[in-house]
Amino acid sequence: MNEKWEKFSARLSELEDLSQAIRLMHWDQEVMMPPEGGPARARSLATLQAMAHDRLTNTEMGDLLGELGTDDSLDQWQAANVRITKREYDKATKIPEALVRELAEHEATAYQVWTKARPADDFSMLEPYLKKMIELKKQVADSIGWTNERYDALLDDFEPGMTAKEVEVMFDELADDLRPLVDQIIDVAGERPAFIDRSYDSAKQQQMCDWLVQAMRFDGQAGRLDTSPHPFTMAVSKGDVRQTTKADPNAIMMSIYAAAHETGHALYEQNLPEEHKGTPAGQVPSLGMHESQSRLWENQVGRSRAYCGYLYPRIKDFFPEQLADVDEQTFYRGANHPQRTLIRVMADEVTYNLHVALRFEIELALFRDELQVADLPQAFNEGMQKWVGITPPSDADGVMQDMHWSIGALGYFPTYTLGTLYAAAFFEKAEKDLPNLHQDMARGEVGPLLQWLKTNVYDHGYLYPAKELGQMVLGEQITARPFIDYLRTKFGEMFSTSF
Amino acid sequence: MNEKWEKFSARLSELEDLSQAIRLMHWDQEVMMPPEGGPARARSLATLQAMAHDRLTNTEMGDLLGELGTDDSLDQWQAANVRITKREYDKATKIPEALVRELAEHEATAYQVWTKARPADDFSMLEPYLKKMIELKKQVADSIGWTNERYDALLDDFEPGMTAKEVEVMFDELADDLRPLVDQIIDVAGERPAFIDRSYDSAKQQQMCDWLVQAMRFDGQAGRLDTSPHPFTMAVSKGDVRQTTKADPNAIMMSIYAAAHETGHALYEQNLPEEHKGTPAGQVPSLGMHESQSRLWENQVGRSRAYCGYLYPRIKDFFPEQLADVDEQTFYRGANHPQRTLIRVMADEVTYNLHVALRFEIELALFRDELQVADLPQAFNEGMQKWVGITPPSDADGVMQDMHWSIGALGYFPTYTLGTLYAAAFFEKAEKDLPNLHQDMARGEVGPLLQWLKTNVYDHGYLYPAKELGQMVLGEQITARPFIDYLRTKFGEMFSTSF
Repeated sequence: MNEKWEKFSARLSELEDLSQAIRLMHWDQEVMMPPEGGPARARSLATLQAMAHDRLTNTEMGDLLGELGTDDSLDQWQAANVRITKREYDKATKIPEALVRELAEHEATAYQVWTKARPADDFSMLEPYLKKMIELKKQVADSIGWTNERYDALLDDFEPGMTAKEVEVMFDELADDLRPLVDQIIDVAGERPAFIDRSYDSAKQQQMCDWLVQAMRFDGQAGRLDTSPHPFTMAVSKGDVRQTTKADPNAIMMSIYAAAHETGHALYEQNLPEEHKGTPAGQVPSLGMHESQSRLWENQVGRSRAYCGYLYPRIKDFFPEQLADVDEQTFYRGANHPQRTLIRVMADEVTYNLHVALRFEIELALFRDELQVADLPQAFNEGMQKWVGITPPSDADGVMQDMHWSIGALGYFPTYTLGTLYAAAFFEKAEKDLPNLHQDMARGEVGPLLQWLKTNVYDHGYLYPAKELGQMVLGEQITARPFIDYLRTKFGEMFSTSF
Repeated sequence: MNEKWEKFSARLSELEDLSQAIRLMHWDQEVMMPPEGGPARARSLATLQAMAHDRLTNTEMGDLLGELGTDDSLDQWQAANVRITKREYDKATKIPEALVRELAEHEATAYQVWTKARPADDFSMLEPYLKKMIELKKQVADSIGWTNERYDALLDDFEPGMTAKEVEVMFDELADDLRPLVDQIIDVAGERPAFIDRSYDSAKQQQMCDWLVQAMRFDGQAGRLDTSPHPFTMAVSKGDVRQTTKADPNAIMMSIYAAAHETGHALYEQNLPEEHKGTPAGQVPSLGMHESQSRLWENQVGRSRAYCGYLYPRIKDFFPEQLADVDEQTFYRGANHPQRTLIRVMADEVTYNLHVALRFEIELALFRDELQVADLPQAFNEGMQKWVGITPPSDADGVMQDMHWSIGALGYFPTYTLGTLYAAAFFEKAEKDLPNLHQDMARGEVGPLLQWLKTNVYDHGYLYPAKELGQMVLGEQITARPFIDYLRTKFGEMFSTSF
């Protein structure tokens, strides 16, 4: 009986209880809350976040962390809980409580403004809120402290230990291979399959998504699927992992692949080690690692030739009219049509990471004081032309298309591309370990893959930092190579050529 | 600038923020949460409730209340906030925090058990949880202290200041007139109109309810309507008042009148004085007063001859087939058919309060140690025979039909009958003040009535205790007379006789 550990564990548990409430309030705000509930919700969230901050940073917690940090009687999970909490404590004690509160309240408010500014296509509505957001985030970064680059302090919130320098290298390496490859693939891609732009009843799409997430092994007894303007996954608590999708009648592929994507996030959360769920060590180690699963289930599984063969007749059952003249191969083509498009969340696998590269470039410029918020729309449009080769016709579908900056998620975007690289690398490894993987997927059987991921990735929770976990799984550091190979092979086969 | 008041006001505001989270978690638990989220939710709720308890009862709050209690520079709303909070503080400081926590956790757990035990018709599953609930509630009552009767301490949570003695007198007076009247009315009521037992599509019923609550002036921008196994209303925060209904295909009247009932609760919450919402003085003074509005909108409005004339063609638009052979008068009869029935929430106006009287009798016996939890099913069944004249065929539709005891709402039931009496008395007064009331209702115009209620009731928030507010509105103490008169007149006219 380790008395210090018991005390610490009780404090962690209280923090988790408070965090659960906060996560539920966030989920509810985006999925359920009526518009006029906004101001009261923003204030209540700010209060709870300040309480959580206070409980993480008080002296008793500091003392316990100090003592347990040198206690070598702890098992590896206990030690990880201490280590992870110490990291959070060190960061959090540096941020003044008033700033935490102001930021939390501003995040909720700015999100509310974004939900109105985007449909109104009015960046000037959002601009002052984004400006204040950047200022507050700079204050946060400066409170935490940084060595080379202010952005490092923000990135660390989402991808602990990663630096802006590393992200720049990642995008440079990727861009070297990816940009010419995109041009080559799009050159031979041909016409956009017509069926993907047909109209599909929203309610039917929701039923289809209910079916799909279950087919992918999402546990509906321990989660929900709802709709929201921007699909997301929220692990409210142990036994309660919620995902949302969006059923736009004119975007059937969006609804299929948003569901597959969020299911990937949800599977990671639902399959974390049961007895450690709800503790720091029993969580996903980074957003990049989280995204590796959403992208793997969306793309390596959902958009594969094999799984499209499984999906095709079942989706045709939901939409017999719209798919009457569509065969299996055309369906597969439709699920993968590479094209320069406006909206990141609707982008195909080939062009997707160009959208992310642009956002990273902009974030870096904002925090290096090389770009002002007022100039964001122009910078975004020019960047879209440079990276994706297309200029947005409006700010609604340009700089305001993502909610991230409005909710304070700055330093978040690079994790999408990191996740893309991990997804390709993990899947390449799984293909070697599971010789029947593609045959299984062709009949909708994803159990062996899920088990492989559970054993190799999910079961480790946050015992190791993301980079270390990646290395354990792959036997080497992550690079862009498996992703580029994957694109070359997949699209080479699709268009009967080689890239 | 009153510094003490500012400090106190900040503390109240923090308490409200925490309470908002708790209310949302309760709403979510009953409407949205997946089954496996139960244990984590119970623990999180218990933690937040303990935090709120701690913040209400700490010495700083005690000191502020002491000083502001004698500060005569406060305006009437400020003074009411101090007075109401002092009352809560006095009670809460008497209950040990460990007991608060244990009770909160047990309430969430017992509710989960009830959701399983009722469909399984297995009282033995629920029994140990109810037993523990009664024990915990006794501990609460004894911690608070009581003079004549343990039950008084519990009743006070829902109807501040009311005593078991007063409730007994209320039921005695009511029963004297009501029991013979029920017999007389049921004698002449004739056949149950067949249309009310036809099958009505659930999804259509939900659309109908969406329409109805709006027609009754529920503000959908500041609230939601969902479905749940037991309809309820939860004012999550200012600008966010949520109600639920239940769309059982075999109980169309239940869905109409549950929606009207909950809308009554919601209208009270949505029309409280705007600038005081979210403060103790800006809330409804008691559950009896709250229930006066649900019953008034359900019965005096929704089940009136005038409003049924408005409802009839509109509900027929939703269900043309089922109502093809039903005329307006038959619809009205169907909305009011008096009958001895099993389920309280489906009971008509005439028999409803007999169901409540039974529950009060049982609660009193439990807290007087004259009845054991193990004997509840038998006591309930015998009581049903005695009061309502019918014996439940199962515990699912007998002693387990209501969730109240499983969520710790003991001392709650009497407020239903108190609400019934206030509803009849307030409406009688409104009829005098608004000569066109029935003509307005006949064309669906409830604005003048809503305004009358706002001015006379809602606008006062919790400036006065419920009994005092009632007296202000009525010019006299509440009695059963207006309710009995109302039944005699209404059912006399309906059956062309006199009672």
